[in-house]
Amino acid sequence: MRVGIISASGYAGGELVRYLLAHPHAKITYLSSHTFAGKPLSEAYPSLLGQDLPLCEQYDADAAAERCDVIFQAYGNGVGMKLAPDLVARGKRFIDVPADFRLKDPAVYREHYGAEHTASDLLQEAVYGVSELHHAEIERARIVANPGCYAVGAILALAPLVAGKLVDPDSIIIDSKSGVSGAGRSKVEVSSLFTEINEGFRAYAVAGHRHTPEIEQELSSLMGREVKVTFTPHLVPMNRGILTTAYARLASDVSDPAGVYRDFYAGRKFVVVLGEGRQPNTKNVFGTNYCHIGFAVDRRTNRIVVTSAIDNMGKGAAGQAVQNMNLMCGFDETTGLTSPAVFP
Amino acid sequence: MRVGIISASGYAGGELVRYLLAHPHAKITYLSSHTFAGKPLSEAYPSLLGQDLPLCEQYDADAAAERCDVIFQAYGNGVGMKLAPDLVARGKRFIDVPADFRLKDPAVYREHYGAEHTASDLLQEAVYGVSELHHAEIERARIVANPGCYAVGAILALAPLVAGKLVDPDSIIIDSKSGVSGAGRSKVEVSSLFTEINEGFRAYAVAGHRHTPEIEQELSSLMGREVKVTFTPHLVPMNRGILTTAYARLASDVSDPAGVYRDFYAGRKFVVVLGEGRQPNTKNVFGTNYCHIGFAVDRRTNRIVVTSAIDNMGKGAAGQAVQNMNLMCGFDETTGLTSPAVFP
Amino acid sequence: MRVGIISASGYAGGELVRYLLAHPHAKITYLSSHTFAGKPLSEAYPSLLGQDLPLCEQYDADAAAERCDVIFQAYGNGVGMKLAPDLVARGKRFIDVPADFRLKDPAVYREHYGAEHTASDLLQEAVYGVSELHHAEIERARIVANPGCYAVGAILALAPLVAGKLVDPDSIIIDSKSGVSGAGRSKVEVSSLFTEINEGFRAYAVAGHRHTPEIEQELSSLMGREVKVTFTPHLVPMNRGILTTAYARLASDVSDPAGVYRDFYAGRKFVVVLGEGRQPNTKNVFGTNYCHIGFAVDRRTNRIVVTSAIDNMGKGAAGQAVQNMNLMCGFDETTGLTSPAVFP
Amino acid sequence: MRVGIISASGYAGGELVRYLLAHPHAKITYLSSHTFAGKPLSEAYPSLLGQDLPLCEQYDADAAAERCDVIFQAYGNGVGMKLAPDLVARGKRFIDVPADFRLKDPAVYREHYGAEHTASDLLQEAVYGVSELHHAEIERARIVANPGCYAVGAILALAPLVAGKLVDPDSIIIDSKSGVSGAGRSKVEVSSLFTEINEGFRAYAVAGHRHTPEIEQELSSLMGREVKVTFTPHLVPMNRGILTTAYARLASDVSDPAGVYRDFYAGRKFVVVLGEGRQPNTKNVFGTNYCHIGFAVDRRTNRIVVTSAIDNMGKGAAGQAVQNMNLMCGFDETTGLTSPAVFP
Repeated sequence: MRVGIISASGYAGGELVRYLLAHPHAKITYLSSHTFAGKPLSEAYPSLLGQDLPLCEQYDADAAAERCDVIFQAYGNGVGMKLAPDLVARGKRFIDVPADFRLKDPAVYREHYGAEHTASDLLQEAVYGVSELHHAEIERARIVANPGCYAVGAILALAPLVAGKLVDPDSIIIDSKSGVSGAGRSKVEVSSLFTEINEGFRAYAVAGHRHTPEIEQELSSLMGREVKVTFTPHLVPMNRGILTTAYARLASDVSDPAGVYRDFYAGRKFVVVLGEGRQPNTKNVFGTNYCHIGFAVDRRTNRIVVTSAIDNMGKGAAGQAVQNMNLMCGFDETTGLTSPAVFP
Repeated sequence: MRVGIISASGYAGGELVRYLLAHPHAKITYLSSHTFAGKPLSEAYPSLLGQDLPLCEQYDADAAAERCDVIFQAYGNGVGMKLAPDLVARGKRFIDVPADFRLKDPAVYREHYGAEHTASDLLQEAVYGVSELHHAEIERARIVANPGCYAVGAILALAPLVAGKLVDPDSIIIDSKSGVSGAGRSKVEVSSLFTEINEGFRAYAVAGHRHTPEIEQELSSLMGREVKVTFTPHLVPMNRGILTTAYARLASDVSDPAGVYRDFYAGRKFVVVLGEGRQPNTKNVFGTNYCHIGFAVDRRTNRIVVTSAIDNMGKGAAGQAVQNMNLMCGFDETTGLTSPAVFP
Repeated sequence: MRVGIISASGYAGGELVRYLLAHPHAKITYLSSHTFAGKPLSEAYPSLLGQDLPLCEQYDADAAAERCDVIFQAYGNGVGMKLAPDLVARGKRFIDVPADFRLKDPAVYREHYGAEHTASDLLQEAVYGVSELHHAEIERARIVANPGCYAVGAILALAPLVAGKLVDPDSIIIDSKSGVSGAGRSKVEVSSLFTEINEGFRAYAVAGHRHTPEIEQELSSLMGREVKVTFTPHLVPMNRGILTTAYARLASDVSDPAGVYRDFYAGRKFVVVLGEGRQPNTKNVFGTNYCHIGFAVDRRTNRIVVTSAIDNMGKGAAGQAVQNMNLMCGFDETTGLTSPAVFP
Repeated sequence: MRVGIISASGYAGGELVRYLLAHPHAKITYLSSHTFAGKPLSEAYPSLLGQDLPLCEQYDADAAAERCDVIFQAYGNGVGMKLAPDLVARGKRFIDVPADFRLKDPAVYREHYGAEHTASDLLQEAVYGVSELHHAEIERARIVANPGCYAVGAILALAPLVAGKLVDPDSIIIDSKSGVSGAGRSKVEVSSLFTEINEGFRAYAVAGHRHTPEIEQELSSLMGREVKVTFTPHLVPMNRGILTTAYARLASDVSDPAGVYRDFYAGRKFVVVLGEGRQPNTKNVFGTNYCHIGFAVDRRTNRIVVTSAIDNMGKGAAGQAVQNMNLMCGFDETTGLTSPAVFP
């Protein structure tokens, strides 16, 4: 399988390279980068010195189409909708890491991303790429919309509860905490300096983060009715990881929540359901595509508290994207993705 | 004012020393420490080399009573109730940093701390030491129960809303994130190693943390009816700071939440209410007794999201204790406590 | 004493404000900032909310001269030599935090800073502000050149050895490790992002750092002959602190190195000489003006290894500058500077 | 190839598991752990949940011998010399991660490790496992002594210079900085707590670290004369990585140091020689078996400054051990070890 990455020099691009180098059936044949065109990617990432990779080049649709079977777009919002129609028409499989193809309704896209969608005819066809929920559709998809990093953690934490109608849909609160790499390598601002983040913790985009609509879209679809959530992201002084703490009021007596989760995720190897009383730690999924889920029932208030841990660069971005590629290309979904976390 | 610290070699004790060295009217005349008895405290904290301090000694009630007017007990749960009756009878002012005198009901104490309370006759007299809420009582108190670190942040975040009956009391969720120093210097376990905490984030004691009952006691008292909350603490890979994100459903239309907070905390200098759209960062209160509060209203779900930032060792422990001492001793509550955060 | 700070919104400026707020005899009467002119400094540093400070303004020499007795210049290299002549002529005491007045020889300045010195007539008068070495001159000075952060740590570590001619001057190697705040708040580059620095360690400016000539100037002066050193700075993933490890071959048998250090620094309260076998930790001087020094003699190779710990923002910048102000203004040098480190 | 790990629950053991799971020709058939006997290793490392591994068991020589072809001993000093004679006699290949078989002279072992060597007859046969230097011997070895983490970084940095007699052997100073995982998971002490290490930097074991003799043994052997070095280790607030800064006076004019290094390490894929002016960062080798080397010549003092970056758990322990296993077993030395660093 010949694979290309658009914008390989960003964090998501670099992480895609790392996963794909470990993939037995994929070969990276094309890397685009505006900043590093004509240079080896190891200029952007000296960690790649010694790896066998093509030089970076300015993006060119003909070159990409000629040299790749699968293309990952990792540049940013607004790019996927420009490039996808052409590449898909040429028979390429297209995985869009940013947000262009996640929301089914172009009006919701406009509201949250402040721009018209220019490929809205592809929105219905594009599959929302949480592999655990859309396995079969992804296998047949030409375009997969890789989900937002916060969205993956939140959706996996809540899916069994909303699908089973076990919780009050008006009671859902999602409190998420992310490592800093989610901001990307191009957000070069005072607030991203080491000195400003180290030994500090804060919330941001309270009651207004762009991942909210895709979370609601998926949860509503699973429950068969509209679900609205309150979602708050926070910044943790660490590089990687998202811990999501989700709260919901139980609608019925759930005697065995672990059983509910294990049944729902049966056969889905990247979701690991921890036993009662064990809480996931982002450290245990660092650098991987795994999602660890724990929970506790607060009997005093009749709420369930679910916690999920992912690597925002792994299951939250590049790992999830490669898992989607595996499904699109007919490989086992775990191919090249099973290495455990680097610990400690 | 002659001041003594019981268990000066723990983190709270060391932090009390730091604040008291900066206090113009307090002189540290007594330091007890089991481990460092007979030695200067700088053996425990080389940061104190060059400071003028008495040697540490084994705790002795007569020595403490003779040499001090005010005594801070910072050893641990179960100690305050043993020492307080005697010291108070000798006319000493007693500030208990751990939990012994926080809960009014000895049955609740037993349930959460697993032991009988042996000085329950003092529970009604002891004042719960969130200075902003119990100003006048603390001025007259012989015993102040310094509040739990999580409790300070949560109570300050929610007090104006519950006191004003502006939120549904059954809807409150408190999601807190703390630096690691809250565990203390004596919790020497694998899970406290640098390597196990760095670059990781997790929840713990979900739906079962001991600070829950004191939060509920205060909020219920403020609201005049029973309030039950869901409370989840998390561990942040940083030394200091607690960021609390509190959620509640609005019971009435609150047009000016900032005004509600500013009115409620008028004249209370350690509570800084940030304007709409600004979020507090624990970094901005690092090493201080300040509490920064921000909020946002999620109109879609009719919830208010309040965030408060404190230093768990400052407003969450030693700073709050010195503020209480100021009130008990007739000083301005800010004396010795106004230095801004060490930043960055 | 009325005090002004030029460029208060940088890290050194903000740290000067923090120290001066704790100073009993200094009042901040003037703050300049290009970015925050017309605004309170708390817009740059929310940690300063609630402090009594003048608004920031665009720098104006007349305003500064009229409202201040002492002026700290914290903007950057090349500014002090423009502003100092005028301000000094108006009778102001001038403390230059950057490098303009550190090097006595304008040719050396040109070589290392790539620009002509435009106030070279003041270079001989300006005093190099390591207070422990130039106490008496600083008391009489109109201009003090605050030393480089690395230079302070290295000079204090080596001064007793070179002044006593106890080491071979051709054998000195200085290996320094600094927290990240030394780069300042305006160095907003990819290499300064949290994600790029966290969990990494590297050297930079190997064999070519600008602090080398001022270290050599001072050591040569102390020894009465030319001293050339090899100096290597490194970046530590922490905000504050410089640990310097200095190596030199012993020229004579030094039986009691601790004694040599204690004699040399007798009466200098900010230099704390640790006993044999104890090593300083930057953590113990975090946020302070102290310098902790330790050492070991490697008998096998006849070398002495000296380690010094400072806070690059404290003894390495703002603390040192306030100590110099104290001396210039006739206060005890420790005034307002004795608070111990925030630990942990 | 059937592989066993003695003491799989320590950090080195866990890291061996991680590397071996990625190895195409090795199968982990035996795991011993005192603490976790009878349990899955995922109880020690939840990061291993979902991996196919045998249960941990108490160490038993017969079981180990029966089920393994290659055995890694990762328990601690003093264990290898007890277990190796028996296992080697049974035809097993034995890789000792701690120090027992590193020093050729049992008197030096006794001096530095404070115990008699009980298998000194095997010392001459055991090969010191820096693969780049002892390639051919390791291929034939029954026992490989995996080198100390600091030693690997220091030896690789200096080998080309001493082998080429390009530096004065009396001038070598090695200043190393290590992440905290080198202390292991069983060093549960106050000084290892997150709070005590975070935001601090210090030296330790100055002029007396146990890795000194093995560094000197190798450098002396390469140079054909006795080399004595001054070696200082430091602790960096990060989990992984060793940056070594090595200093030596040039004995002859070295016009092309990069050429010297590239020639010396020709064909050795894990050593990456950076070009003039580029400095290695431990972050770029995080989680890998690579060693990046940079250098600069300080013409003013005629010294060369060499910097090497490794992961102390990778090239400094488990990665190096697997590389040695590859050589001992006839695989290409890079098998299973080429994945790039997890970045950022």
